Amino acid sequence: MIAEFSIVPIGKDVGLSRYVAECIKIVKRSGLPFQLTPMGTIVQGPYDQVMDIIKMCHMKVASMSDRVSTVIKIDDRKDERPMIQKVESVLEKL
Amino acid sequence: MIAEFSIVPIGKDVGLSRYVAECIKIVKRSGLPFQLTPMGTIVQGPYDQVMDIIKMCHMKVASMSDRVSTVIKIDDRKDERPMIQKVESVLEKL
Amino acid sequence: MIAEFSIVPIGKDVGLSRYVAECIKIVKRSGLPFQLTPMGTIVQGPYDQVMDIIKMCHMKVASMSDRVSTVIKIDDRKDERPMIQKVESVLEKL
Amino acid sequence: MIAEFSIVPIGKDVGLSRYVAECIKIVKRSGLPFQLTPMGTIVQGPYDQVMDIIKMCHMKVASMSDRVSTVIKIDDRKDERPMIQKVESVLEKL
Repeated sequence: MIAEFSIVPIGKDVGLSRYVAECIKIVKRSGLPFQLTPMGTIVQGPYDQVMDIIKMCHMKVASMSDRVSTVIKIDDRKDERPMIQKVESVLEKL
Repeated sequence: MIAEFSIVPIGKDVGLSRYVAECIKIVKRSGLPFQLTPMGTIVQGPYDQVMDIIKMCHMKVASMSDRVSTVIKIDDRKDERPMIQKVESVLEKL
Repeated sequence: MIAEFSIVPIGKDVGLSRYVAECIKIVKRSGLPFQLTPMGTIVQGPYDQVMDIIKMCHMKVASMSDRVSTVIKIDDRKDERPMIQKVESVLEKL
Repeated sequence: MIAEFSIVPIGKDVGLSRYVAECIKIVKRSGLPFQLTPMGTIVQGPYDQVMDIIKMCHMKVASMSDRVSTVIKIDDRKDERPMIQKVESVLEKL
C-alpha cells in the first residue's frame, strides 16, 4: 500500500523540520521507497511494515513533546504499482 | 490516545453504511470507548490496541473491494483524559 | 455537503480548547447544523457557506498564533440527507 | 499558505487518474506553484486563491460522480517561504 503521514508536536516549536528529520531517518533505515513532500512523507510497502514505521516516527516525536497530532492517509489497492506510476498515470492524461 | 478513522472503498457503492457497520462491529468487540460520528469513528485506547482495531477494519473493507482509502487522525497527549472531556472542556469556554 | 474540520495552532499551548471554543462561537452564529466531537467540528450546509465558516475559524486561530495546521474532510453527495441520518443508517445495519 | 488536497469520487472507477488529471488542468491554469505527489496535489498561494482552486476541482469531480470525498490539509504560517524550502530545511538536518 501507499501511505502519507505527517506528525506534528503541539505546544512546541513553530518550525517542525527537526521533528520531520527524525522521522525521515527512521523511514530511510527501513529501505522502503519513500518521498518527502512539503506536506508529509509518503512510503510504499506492506501494511504492517509501513504502519510500524509510522508508529516509530509517532513515538519518536511523542518522546520530544507532550502532545502529538498525527495524520495518516492510506491508499491500498489490489493491483498496486510503484508509487511513481500514480503520478505518471495522471501526467499521461494531461 | 484518541484516534478518528474513516475507511472508504473506491469503485464500489455510493452508499457506505454497510462498510461502516462492519467496522463498528469490530470496534464494539474491542470493548474500547468509541463514538460513531457522521464523518468517522473515534476510538480511545493504547496506541497498539487502537491501531490493531483500525487494521482489522481496513482489512475487512479491503476484502470487500479492490481499493480502499483510509484516513486516520491521532491525538496523543501525555496527560490524556476520557474523550468526552475534550468536548466538555470546549463547552465550558463558550 | 457535510464537512469536518480541525484547526490547530503550532508552537502555542498544549491545550487547544480555547481555540476550539472560538471556532464553535463562529459556527454557532452561522445557524447551520453542527456537531462538536472529540476530534473536530462537523458542519452541514452548502459548499460556499460551510467553507466560509471554516475560513473564519482558520483566520481566527491564525490571528492567535504564528502557524496554523488545518484539516478539512468533505463528504458531498447529490442525494444528501441530514447528517444524523448517516449515523442512523449505520446503526440500522448492526 | 500551502495546501494539499485529494478529491475522490465514491461509487465510480477504481482508477482515479482521469479525475486527478482534470484537477491538475485547473491547478495549472492558476499559475500558482504546485506539486503532484502520489497521494495528492500541493499548491501554494493566498488563502482565497488556493481555496478557489480546490473548489473548482471539487466541483469538477462532483460533476462527474454522485458522491465526492475531499481531504484538504492546510499549513499556514506567518513567515512563509517557498514550499520547496520546507523539504530543503529537513534535508539539511539529516
